[in-house]
Amino acid sequence: MAKTRKQPRPKAQTPKGFRDYFGAEVTQRTEMLQQIAGVYHRYGFDALESSAVETVEALGKFLPDVDRPNEGVFAWQEDAEADKPGDWLALRYDLTAPLARVYAQNRNDLPTPYRRYAMGPVWRNEKPGPGRFRQFYQCDADTVGSASMAADAEICAMLSDTLEAVGIARGDYVIRINNRKVLNGVLEMMELAKMEEPRVREANSPSRRDAVVHAVEVVYRDAVLRTIDKFDKVGEVGVRELLTTGRKDESGAFIDGVGLEMEDVAPVLAFLTSKGGNNEQTLENLTAAVGQSAIGAEGIEELRQIAKLLAAQGYGPDRIVIDPSVVRGLGYYTGPVYEAELTFDIFDEKGRKRQFGSVAGGGRYDDLVKRFTGQEVPATGISIGVDRLLAALREKGRITATEHGPVVITVMDRDRMADYQSMVAELRGAGLRAEVYLGNPKNFGNQLKYADRRNSPVAIIEGGDEKDRGVVQVKDLILGAQIAQNATLEEWKDRPSQVEIPRGDLVAKVREILAGHGIGQD
Amino acid sequence: MAKTRKQPRPKAQTPKGFRDYFGAEVTQRTEMLQQIAGVYHRYGFDALESSAVETVEALGKFLPDVDRPNEGVFAWQEDAEADKPGDWLALRYDLTAPLARVYAQNRNDLPTPYRRYAMGPVWRNEKPGPGRFRQFYQCDADTVGSASMAADAEICAMLSDTLEAVGIARGDYVIRINNRKVLNGVLEMMELAKMEEPRVREANSPSRRDAVVHAVEVVYRDAVLRTIDKFDKVGEVGVRELLTTGRKDESGAFIDGVGLEMEDVAPVLAFLTSKGGNNEQTLENLTAAVGQSAIGAEGIEELRQIAKLLAAQGYGPDRIVIDPSVVRGLGYYTGPVYEAELTFDIFDEKGRKRQFGSVAGGGRYDDLVKRFTGQEVPATGISIGVDRLLAALREKGRITATEHGPVVITVMDRDRMADYQSMVAELRGAGLRAEVYLGNPKNFGNQLKYADRRNSPVAIIEGGDEKDRGVVQVKDLILGAQIAQNATLEEWKDRPSQVEIPRGDLVAKVREILAGHGIGQD
Repeated sequence: MAKTRKQPRPKAQTPKGFRDYFGAEVTQRTEMLQQIAGVYHRYGFDALESSAVETVEALGKFLPDVDRPNEGVFAWQEDAEADKPGDWLALRYDLTAPLARVYAQNRNDLPTPYRRYAMGPVWRNEKPGPGRFRQFYQCDADTVGSASMAADAEICAMLSDTLEAVGIARGDYVIRINNRKVLNGVLEMMELAKMEEPRVREANSPSRRDAVVHAVEVVYRDAVLRTIDKFDKVGEVGVRELLTTGRKDESGAFIDGVGLEMEDVAPVLAFLTSKGGNNEQTLENLTAAVGQSAIGAEGIEELRQIAKLLAAQGYGPDRIVIDPSVVRGLGYYTGPVYEAELTFDIFDEKGRKRQFGSVAGGGRYDDLVKRFTGQEVPATGISIGVDRLLAALREKGRITATEHGPVVITVMDRDRMADYQSMVAELRGAGLRAEVYLGNPKNFGNQLKYADRRNSPVAIIEGGDEKDRGVVQVKDLILGAQIAQNATLEEWKDRPSQVEIPRGDLVAKVREILAGHGIGQD
Repeated sequence: MAKTRKQPRPKAQTPKGFRDYFGAEVTQRTEMLQQIAGVYHRYGFDALESSAVETVEALGKFLPDVDRPNEGVFAWQEDAEADKPGDWLALRYDLTAPLARVYAQNRNDLPTPYRRYAMGPVWRNEKPGPGRFRQFYQCDADTVGSASMAADAEICAMLSDTLEAVGIARGDYVIRINNRKVLNGVLEMMELAKMEEPRVREANSPSRRDAVVHAVEVVYRDAVLRTIDKFDKVGEVGVRELLTTGRKDESGAFIDGVGLEMEDVAPVLAFLTSKGGNNEQTLENLTAAVGQSAIGAEGIEELRQIAKLLAAQGYGPDRIVIDPSVVRGLGYYTGPVYEAELTFDIFDEKGRKRQFGSVAGGGRYDDLVKRFTGQEVPATGISIGVDRLLAALREKGRITATEHGPVVITVMDRDRMADYQSMVAELRGAGLRAEVYLGNPKNFGNQLKYADRRNSPVAIIEGGDEKDRGVVQVKDLILGAQIAQNATLEEWKDRPSQVEIPRGDLVAKVREILAGHGIGQD
């Protein structure tokens, strides 16, 4: 027999930045995702589960032009075959890039428009931090191949229905809509003004003039987009400071400004603060902000259509509202942008009251499959932050973090295991969650400790004496725990947490106790 | 603006050996897994979702002692940090290795015994073939920390309940139980006989004698285990030939035999063919086969206990039966072994009738966490082949491969999108799956083609004329397809596939048509 070299014992640890999910963490997420899938299905969206592994080439962005693909994804190279080097493969980092690949690959077989939803883990090769993991769930719905604003309105309506279906009450959330084209319109107006600047006028040829205009455009767009992304944090005054002369942040550090003149900044601030008392008012304010810009007018018309479609279906501004202060993702999307925020207060880790904040976002992106086919295909969709939405439901008490364990049948007599097994079969047959203790039964205390660790509501005891008399002992563990906590109080004295009942009443008694504690069984 | 070098267009393709799942393929699997989880939950098993990524060290078997870990897993090396080389990480290749790691990592917090179930994708870096993919689903249930045969009996009973819960009728499956220890007993008896052989007797020292006995043991065990694994395929005669002088296979090629004498082979064949008319008879036959072997007697006693526990719960041999011809996995497990087979006939790709075969298997393995902690922890469990079980349900017509699409509201007048949206909202509000056509509405034929591709049961039409008269046209697309197929038959003539109804009757009429086609909506 060949001796194997003795290896040191392996460490039993998840890789850095990864975690496991236990019990209720798994089942509550599954249940929530099923509720979401139910809404998506009713809206005509079809499920898609794409492969977790993609070629780096198909994922895009992360091209293997060096020894290893860029950071951000988990990637590896396939073994070479014959004299062909192996492909680089990677774990998907979101559900949108795979959708692009799937649609391009199957576009002749898929219906157009293609409405699909997808839910599953994605992986990011990033530095893990507290609460930031390298594997997490996303839950997306997208409509590919429709340029109609009805597709955007539908996504927003569906998101509203979804939030209510999982247990977020109306009034506890709002879906805000903005439009990238409107911002583009604002920027266009600013740039048109810039064209009158000396250095543009003085350019000595039309093509030179165009180049300068283009350079101005790029500089402005990038700077403005980067800055207004901070609007949520720094507010109107902060954005003004950052776009002009700079700003001192909370820590006292000075952040350089973009260097725009105060009057140049006005249109951007007008845009960000356009929200009026109702959608009509907001659209009017936006119209003023974009001035003569054609693209701006187009964006406003898109918002107007969405608002009209939603109103026709009864989704008022208490649920879905036009709000130009929504800037997250404006740099990425090409048309309407949506964000769902939960508006109830929570207390953060420092005890400060704040709003729960965003749980879903999305928008229109019209270049989805162009990388693959060269053809522009319009698409719009949303992504729900699964972990954040679950956290919100826990916060609201819609789901509780702990779950009651099974009824535990203790083992008093190892030789009568068959008796205990038939008890448990009866309970399960009645739809109750139940199990026989399967550890070493010698120490009865360990059995009760086990039931405690499993958070069991009820334990059943049948020793030889009980067996002879045709009875069983039923121990109400929840009541027992309450009595233990309140041992000195008179009122608990009369409530025995353990009762003896005829063996034939087992199922009825257990059911009664569970119902008394409001525990639903399935 | 920096010019980027023009890249060739990426190929829109899944990596070799990977695939995507669409629509019903996803939802039917999800539904089946939820039914399975329901049974597991009722048995007291807790959900566990471990990280998809593990350290290669924790996964075991695939140690990175060369430049790259061995084949079989998808693995990559983390970036180095400071002067420490990065860890090797890999995608899990099954759900048992992660269970071992999770249990070792959390053994102080988890209850013992720990009953857990897990369902999810696993990845194998193997050569893909037809129907063989490099990512597929597993669905496992294991009890860790119980040496009791009640744990094994429970797993078998749960597997039986599970198969019936997903739709396999009683009588269409059987769960067979065998025990590795019984085979060990048979081998032990053979080896004891070998000890009387001349070359053992002539060994010139006791330690030399032990070494020879050990060598004989290893050679025999390996050869016998390898050969009886083929019992399913080659039957009793085949195994006898392979263990002795060799055998000509179907293609005419000759396979060398192990070289045992005919009389040496008898105990193995006696073991494999021990199944009697009932469990008692089988246990008697096995008792004869293991002779004086203590380990053999232990294995038989284990089987006897399992049979007794199952009988007490009413699981007769029509559902779970002792069958020593079950040999799959005997080399891997350390005690009882189980296999669930579907017994109904199907026709294979060549039109030959055969039994559907195995859909789940498992057994007891008592060295689960020893690699990590040095301590032996008893464990027993099963793994369900998710894809095979789904295929079986399709085969039995329990689920149909295609799914009906949503009701499609066609768009006759682009400006009245709000009207169509309110129709669809009504239908969804009534729990019906419905959508508005969101493609370019100009060509009405395309809208009906779209409904066809989506497998929609009903299309709704409301042009300006209908709108004025307060009616809508409801088109029964399933009936329409039937009429098209049977256009010449008289009986179809009187059944119009399109009816005009008052707008207010929309929901009632659609519901009536769907019910007529037996389509359940949610």
